[in-house]
Amino acid sequence: MTNRAPIKLSAYLVGTGMHIASWRHPHAQANASHDIDYYKRLAQTAEQGKFDFVFIADSLAINEESHSNILNRFEPITLITAMAGATSKIGVVATASTSYIEPFNLARLFMSVDHISKGRAGWNIVTTRDLSGNTARNFGREEHFEHSLRYQRAKEFVEVTLGLWDTWEQDAFLYDKENGQFYDRSKLHRLNYKGEFFSVEGPLNIGRSPQGRPVLVQAGSSESGQNFAASHAEVIFSHKNNIEDAKNLYASFKSKAAAEGRSPDDVFIFQGISPIIGETDEIARKKFEYLESLITQEHAFSFLTEYFHGRVDFSPYTLQTGAADIGLHLLDGVRFEFQQRQELIGRTNPTLRELYSLLTGSFGVEEFIGSPQKVADRVEHWYREHAADGFMLMCPLLPDGLDDFIRLVVPILQERGLFRTDYEGDTLREHLGLSQPSSRYEQQAVPQQP
Amino acid sequence: MTNRAPIKLSAYLVGTGMHIASWRHPHAQANASHDIDYYKRLAQTAEQGKFDFVFIADSLAINEESHSNILNRFEPITLITAMAGATSKIGVVATASTSYIEPFNLARLFMSVDHISKGRAGWNIVTTRDLSGNTARNFGREEHFEHSLRYQRAKEFVEVTLGLWDTWEQDAFLYDKENGQFYDRSKLHRLNYKGEFFSVEGPLNIGRSPQGRPVLVQAGSSESGQNFAASHAEVIFSHKNNIEDAKNLYASFKSKAAAEGRSPDDVFIFQGISPIIGETDEIARKKFEYLESLITQEHAFSFLTEYFHGRVDFSPYTLQTGAADIGLHLLDGVRFEFQQRQELIGRTNPTLRELYSLLTGSFGVEEFIGSPQKVADRVEHWYREHAADGFMLMCPLLPDGLDDFIRLVVPILQERGLFRTDYEGDTLREHLGLSQPSSRYEQQAVPQQP
Ligand SMILES: Cc1cc2nc3c(=O)[nH]c(=O)nc-3n(C[C@H](O)[C@H](O)[C@H](O)COP(=O)(O)O)c2cc1C
Ligand SMILES: Cc1cc2nc3c(=O)[nH]c(=O)nc-3n(C[C@H](O)[C@H](O)[C@H](O)COP(=O)(O)O)c2cc1C
Repeated sequence: MTNRAPIKLSAYLVGTGMHIASWRHPHAQANASHDIDYYKRLAQTAEQGKFDFVFIADSLAINEESHSNILNRFEPITLITAMAGATSKIGVVATASTSYIEPFNLARLFMSVDHISKGRAGWNIVTTRDLSGNTARNFGREEHFEHSLRYQRAKEFVEVTLGLWDTWEQDAFLYDKENGQFYDRSKLHRLNYKGEFFSVEGPLNIGRSPQGRPVLVQAGSSESGQNFAASHAEVIFSHKNNIEDAKNLYASFKSKAAAEGRSPDDVFIFQGISPIIGETDEIARKKFEYLESLITQEHAFSFLTEYFHGRVDFSPYTLQTGAADIGLHLLDGVRFEFQQRQELIGRTNPTLRELYSLLTGSFGVEEFIGSPQKVADRVEHWYREHAADGFMLMCPLLPDGLDDFIRLVVPILQERGLFRTDYEGDTLREHLGLSQPSSRYEQQAVPQQP
Repeated sequence: MTNRAPIKLSAYLVGTGMHIASWRHPHAQANASHDIDYYKRLAQTAEQGKFDFVFIADSLAINEESHSNILNRFEPITLITAMAGATSKIGVVATASTSYIEPFNLARLFMSVDHISKGRAGWNIVTTRDLSGNTARNFGREEHFEHSLRYQRAKEFVEVTLGLWDTWEQDAFLYDKENGQFYDRSKLHRLNYKGEFFSVEGPLNIGRSPQGRPVLVQAGSSESGQNFAASHAEVIFSHKNNIEDAKNLYASFKSKAAAEGRSPDDVFIFQGISPIIGETDEIARKKFEYLESLITQEHAFSFLTEYFHGRVDFSPYTLQTGAADIGLHLLDGVRFEFQQRQELIGRTNPTLRELYSLLTGSFGVEEFIGSPQKVADRVEHWYREHAADGFMLMCPLLPDGLDDFIRLVVPILQERGLFRTDYEGDTLREHLGLSQPSSRYEQQAVPQQP
């Protein structure tokens, strides 16, 4: 327990912030999602705050109702490459799906960024959700792969990727000009992977990076998603609304990882939080309410109409109408994640504005809205209670949320000895305290008989 | 004629240079192919030289005999992203094949770099050559697509890519905070492409860049490759060994482009040259001979053994043995590009070292080896004779070759008024004098009746 790593921090960077109406905020730069200088500044800010890494999410399709921040945004791998060039220490993690790219291309792209960043890259492995088939239809398919198939493919995909990353041993290159030996042929390997979904011969045309290979990151909420994360991921994102659920998930991930023969200390659970900081708790809450007030009725109703496939006519209502008052908790045949919330909706009767926020994911955990002191206390509490090893800041408003947290909360955590005051190393693995993995072929090396 | 654009210059950046033994040269940094600081410096050098763009080639497979510079190298799109971050004016062009990636992913990656670089990106479209099936086997296939199929796929691929780049009109984003209008819905379009090889719905999740879209670059040597280039490419690479062939190819490309309804001035023909500069022509030639002397017999013979599928035992010979003396010009059933050269080999009887250089492509055009004056004269001559609009420097040795050319040849060209002394604009299209294309949907706009 005394040896437990200090708190880890990361920042989810997305344009004007996670809140659906953040772009309308007077402090927001509305074109942020495709302004590279803006992203570079955010990454530099997070580096000044000594964060472990910045994080970029992804999706592979949009439609007319998509969140303003994802309509026109950078591709994540090129974005983290650019951010790596504007920083020198902080880790850079990008999301990429296993469902719509060839593993050779992905293995290569991430290893390339890992070299460009000198060992600071991470890959957030997702399988993509695509209820409407929007994504599938961008890739020549009628429908997305079915859920369990997605994870079967993902399992092979990660095996291939790790395999390709191992094809060059770490010290394969000799650069011996005198003898004309550029590399040691015994340290180059073919993968010859033949699976159900992928067949990849290798080798990869890029060698291992300063941290060996990129850090693997994952966030699965389904059973198969969680098992996948426990067997592969070095960083796992969780996103629970209360500390009890978070503690359960934390314990479950740690024991699943142990069951896979991994050290629980090599798996970091990051809880997603959406802090809003104010001088007082009340000011912070008012800031949140102000953001909520920026949601337009037109936008919300057009989203909700599509969400319920045109089965509900919202035109007689306002954003203050109660969702249960108009019977939304009784609708059948709706999306799975809505079904899961119908009981709650019937019980609490949220306004349509609140429902919209709920469905578009802009609600944070209430306890992270408040004064710097309060937020620092909650962070410490969740950490000490083993609800999280680290936190991913999913700020409702950027850059304000990140600036405030770094200026006001980080110093408190540092004073308490809970967070670093400077980087101890240069790679993402060093920040996380993960050891550098070696190629599978290096491990097979047998000492020569004398 | 008087309005003809001045000479265009670009630099093919590849580790220690194009020469197969360049990494052994005392001036070479042997690990250059995966040192990001090295590439950033080269790009900065080329920008100081006011070059139009730097260029990164690519391939998707290696084997034990591959050129030292491609065994362990960056993925090109991430590499140009990093170089864009280290420069502010120069264009950055990366190669990517249409054969082994989904068009949605490629369209997105390149548009993302085009934003990151603020309108300086270009895509060199290749279909990949893969005689041995090495590449195919990295992507789950037994064999590469057959040549004409490759170009049929490439044609559709480029149609999809251009289509996706058009799905957002240039001025689609309103950012109207007051009225909650983030974008104008009438300026977002679906592509709904359904072809023989690709079906892609769109829209793309990134809007148009400061130069509209990336510049299209191509180098095809076959008939279908040349037709493809003439119909799509804004920059075409040619690589001819003498000015007569280059003039013919130049004229052919310009007239083919015209036949496609394009202005010949919107298609730039770049000739690849491999300059070596010395105080005198003799010193330059000695520099080349010195590079040639660094080729090891072991490496060359191992390459040649594989090249001839083990049918020739080279062990009795040396690098000085004549290729015709041992009957290589009489072998049947050899690779196509070797067949094409057998008559030449029989006639000129090159040494095995020379044959190796020929097959691995390290021979430059002799007339670009010499004093700065001579090289500048040859460049001017090829330009004035309409053998080329621009030149791609494929330096045998880097960074020396690029440094020398910029320090010694560029000033001569500038003095003669043949090359810019400063950038006129900020985007790659502006450097080339290409107009900014608009989305197809913008062109359809019809003025409203009053
Ligand atoms: C913090 C966090 C970030 C996530 N980022 C992405 C993302 O960028 N792209 C994506 O497709 N899914 C993302 N997810 C979704 C998960 O990867 C996962 O697909 C989702 O929770 C559904 O679980 P399942 O895949 O196990 O069904 C994220 C989840 C969390 C908690
Ligand atoms: C200057 C130059 C650069 C090239 N770069 C690449 C490259 O990076 N990758 C590649 O696969 N082919 C490259 N090529 C090859 C051509 O794109 C083309 O495939 C080749 O000339 C064969 O012609 P074909 O495709 O018409 O059969 C290059 C050619 C030239 C002249």
